[in-house]
Amino acid sequence: MERRVNGRSRLIVVGGDAGGMSAASQARRRRGPDDLEILALERGAHTSYSACGIPYLVGKTVSSADELIARAPDTFRRDYAIDVRTGTEVTAIDLERRVVGMIGGDGMFHEEHFDHLLIATGAVPRRPDLPGADAQGIHGVQTLDDGIRLRAEVDERSPRRAVVVGGGYIGLEMAEAFLERGVEVDLIEAGPEPMGTLDPDMGRLVRDAVCEMGVRFFPGTRVTGFDTKDGRVRAVLTEDAEFPADIVVLGMGVRPNSDLARQAGLEVGPTGGIVVDPRMRTSVEGVWAAGDCVQTVHRISGAPVAIALGTHANKQGRVAGINIAGGYARFPGVVGTAITKICGVEVARTGLGEAEARRAGFEFETVTVRSSTRAGYYPGASMMTLKLIAERRTGRLLGGQIVGRENAGKRVDVLATALWNEMTVEEMAGMDLGYAPPFSPVWDPVLVAARKLEGAL
Amino acid sequence: MERRVNGRSRLIVVGGDAGGMSAASQARRRRGPDDLEILALERGAHTSYSACGIPYLVGKTVSSADELIARAPDTFRRDYAIDVRTGTEVTAIDLERRVVGMIGGDGMFHEEHFDHLLIATGAVPRRPDLPGADAQGIHGVQTLDDGIRLRAEVDERSPRRAVVVGGGYIGLEMAEAFLERGVEVDLIEAGPEPMGTLDPDMGRLVRDAVCEMGVRFFPGTRVTGFDTKDGRVRAVLTEDAEFPADIVVLGMGVRPNSDLARQAGLEVGPTGGIVVDPRMRTSVEGVWAAGDCVQTVHRISGAPVAIALGTHANKQGRVAGINIAGGYARFPGVVGTAITKICGVEVARTGLGEAEARRAGFEFETVTVRSSTRAGYYPGASMMTLKLIAERRTGRLLGGQIVGRENAGKRVDVLATALWNEMTVEEMAGMDLGYAPPFSPVWDPVLVAARKLEGAL
Repeated sequence: MERRVNGRSRLIVVGGDAGGMSAASQARRRRGPDDLEILALERGAHTSYSACGIPYLVGKTVSSADELIARAPDTFRRDYAIDVRTGTEVTAIDLERRVVGMIGGDGMFHEEHFDHLLIATGAVPRRPDLPGADAQGIHGVQTLDDGIRLRAEVDERSPRRAVVVGGGYIGLEMAEAFLERGVEVDLIEAGPEPMGTLDPDMGRLVRDAVCEMGVRFFPGTRVTGFDTKDGRVRAVLTEDAEFPADIVVLGMGVRPNSDLARQAGLEVGPTGGIVVDPRMRTSVEGVWAAGDCVQTVHRISGAPVAIALGTHANKQGRVAGINIAGGYARFPGVVGTAITKICGVEVARTGLGEAEARRAGFEFETVTVRSSTRAGYYPGASMMTLKLIAERRTGRLLGGQIVGRENAGKRVDVLATALWNEMTVEEMAGMDLGYAPPFSPVWDPVLVAARKLEGAL
Repeated sequence: MERRVNGRSRLIVVGGDAGGMSAASQARRRRGPDDLEILALERGAHTSYSACGIPYLVGKTVSSADELIARAPDTFRRDYAIDVRTGTEVTAIDLERRVVGMIGGDGMFHEEHFDHLLIATGAVPRRPDLPGADAQGIHGVQTLDDGIRLRAEVDERSPRRAVVVGGGYIGLEMAEAFLERGVEVDLIEAGPEPMGTLDPDMGRLVRDAVCEMGVRFFPGTRVTGFDTKDGRVRAVLTEDAEFPADIVVLGMGVRPNSDLARQAGLEVGPTGGIVVDPRMRTSVEGVWAAGDCVQTVHRISGAPVAIALGTHANKQGRVAGINIAGGYARFPGVVGTAITKICGVEVARTGLGEAEARRAGFEFETVTVRSSTRAGYYPGASMMTLKLIAERRTGRLLGGQIVGRENAGKRVDVLATALWNEMTVEEMAGMDLGYAPPFSPVWDPVLVAARKLEGAL
C-alpha cells in the first residue's frame, strides 16, 4: 500500500503539538529516516509545548515561553530527522490522490504526497458569534502564540480590569493569572456555578473559594456582545449589565478542530471529534488522527467524548506512532479525569457527575464527606470535600469529585484507578491505601466516603 | 449460644486501642446497651490513640499527648455505654469456662464472664535479649505511655546524643524526632540500608537523604549489648564499636502480642499472629481478634502476614464489631502499603519487594524511573524515584516503591489500587490519571514507569 520513493515511504503529520509530535517521535523511533520520511506541518511557530501551562505563563508563575516548550522544531529536525515546517497551514487534504495542500511560510500554495497521514489539528476555542467579538483585547487561550500575545499585552498595557468569560478550567486559571498580575477580575459564567464539570454542590465550594480570593463571580450571566472603541474592547455586554474591561479572555471551552478532516471526507462523530478506532485509525486506510481533534470512548458511560487534554493527546499520539510504524498499540479510552489548582484550592473530578450519570441511564446514590487531608494533629492538615457517585444495586463507582487545599486534588487518581477497574464502593472501602499522619487520617478520605456510600446503597 | 444475663449478653474486649475500640463502637452502634453489655479492658491509661503519632509527640511537632487521643475512656463510657477499665491487665483467658482473668487497678485478680470475646492485644516491640537491655534510658516506642515517658525524658534530661537501633519506619521517624529536638543521632541498622521493606537500591536513596539531614548511619551493624552505669544506659555496644548514648530508642520492629491467645489455646500462625478468618473469627466460636495481634492474607503473595498498622487495626476492628453484632463484613486482606516522611523525604511502598517476590515464587522484571512530581516548569517541582516490579509473562504488577519529596509519597495509592485489581503494567500505562502542571508532568510518573516496564517485559 505504501508508495515508496527512493525506497522510502512518507508520513505527513498535520499539527506539531502533543498528539502530532508524539506520533512522529514514536514512528521515528521504530523506523529510521531511510525507511520512513516524516514531514510535520505546523501552522504556528512552536512545536510540542504545554498548552496547559499558558495561564502560568500569563501569570508569570512561569517566566518565559521557552519553559513551556518540550521540544523545539530544531530538536525534531536534528535529533529525530523530522522535517518540521512551522508557519505552514494545511488547507486541504485529498484522500483520493493522497496529497495534502498547504500554504507555506512563503505564502505559496503547494502539495505534498503522503503514504500515512496523521491529523493532529487539536482544538479551537469556542468563540461567540456576537457583535464586537473580533475586537482587539479579546483573547482566546489555546495556542502558545495566543499565550505569548496575551502576556505581552498585559505587560505593555497594564490593564486594570479583566473580564473572563467562562468559569471552567481555563477561565479559572486565567482569573488566577490576572490576580497574580494585580489585575481585577470579573468572571462571567452562564451556568449556576463555576467549573461546570463538577456537580453544582461541589462547584459552589469552588465559587466560595474563588470569591474569597477576590474574583467577582457572576453566575447565570450570558454575554450578548462587546462594546468597542477604535477596534478595541471596552466592555463586555450581558443582558442585564455592562462589565468594563481593559482586557477580555474567552474561556468558553474548546471544540475539536475537525473541519479539515470533515472536508476531506473523514467521519466526524456527534462530539465534533474525528472518529478513530482504539489504534487511532480514521475511517480511511492509512489516515490516522490523535489528540484534541478526535473523539474517544468514555469507559463509564460508554459514550463518545471529546476531551481536550495534553495527557490524552500524548498517549494517543504515541499509540498512533507505534501503529503507523507497524507496531501494535491501543488507546483504551478515558474516564474523564481532570484536575486544577486555583490560588491554593485544588479541584478534581473523574468519571460521571450526577447529570452525566443520569444521561447515561444510571440510577445512583451519592455521598459527600468532609475529611482531613492528614491526621488532624499533624501540621498542615486541612479539610477537603469528597463526593462519590455509585450505581444503585451494583454499588459500582461511577464518579468522584474533590475540592480542597494542598494534598487534596491528586487523590482523584485513586478514584480514577478504581473506576478503571469497575470497583464497587464496598471493595474500595477495604483498600490498603497509604497511611501515616503526614499523609492521611487513619481512615483515608477515600475510604470514609466509600464506606458511607456503601452504607447508603 | 449467648448466655443472656438479665436479657443481655456480654462482649469483652481485651485491649483498648484501635482494633478493640473500633470493634466495641461498631458493636454498640448495632446493639444497644440493653441488648449487649460491652466491657473493654486496657492495660494502659489510654484508649483509641494514634500510636503512629508518637514520634511527632516526641519531636514536638505535636504539642501534647491529648492530641493523639481520638476518644478517651470517658467518651466511650458516656457516649457509647462501654464499660472501659484502664489499668487492667488481662492475665488469662479460659475458653472452656468462657471467662477472662484480670488484675485490676486495685491490684486484685478477678474474673469476668463473656459471651463474645475480642482479642485486640496489639503488638510488642522486639527487644534484644542482650546484656543491659533493661537499663533506664532505653525506650521502646509502642504505646502512648511509652511515648509520654520518652518525651518527658527528653524534656528533663536534654540528652546530647541519641542512638536509634533499627532503621525501619519507627527508627527513622524517631531519628527525625531527635533531630527536631536538637539531639545528635546515630542510627544503627543490621541490614545494608535503612527501610528494610524497600529494596536496597531504593533504601540507598533513603540513606542518602537521612545522612544529608545529619543523621549518622551505620549499616551492617549488630548490637551486642548496652554499657550501663548506675542502671542507666551510657553506650550501645556493637561488635566493632561503642556508641555513646544519653538515650536509646529501639526500633527493631514489633511482633504480634499473641501470647495470651496462644496460652488460651487459640491457633497462632507462622507469623506469630492469631489466625482469623476474613470475618475476624478465631479458631474458637465466639472468640474474635483484630489489629496488630492477628495475621492476615497478603493479596499478592497469598501468604499470611502480620503487619502492625493503625489503618488495618481500625478496619479489622470495624469488621469484627459488625460481625459480633450479627452483621456481615469481611476484611479483604492487605497489599502491604506503607508510607512515611522523614524531614521532607517521602518514602512509600506497596506490594512485594524483590526479595519477597522471589520468596513467593514469582519471576519478575523491575524498572526504576526518575520523574518530576509536577510539570518541570511549575514551581515546587522536584524529582522522585519510582520503582515497579511486574511478573514476567503476565505483566501483572507485583509491587512499587517511591522515594521523593513533597507530593511523591501518596502516589503509592495508585499503585496499591492497581495491585488490588491485579492490573498489568500495560493496562496501567493507559490509565486516565489527573494531569495539570501543578500536579504532574504530562506523563504522570506512574504512567512513565508502567510504560517502561511494559517495554522491558
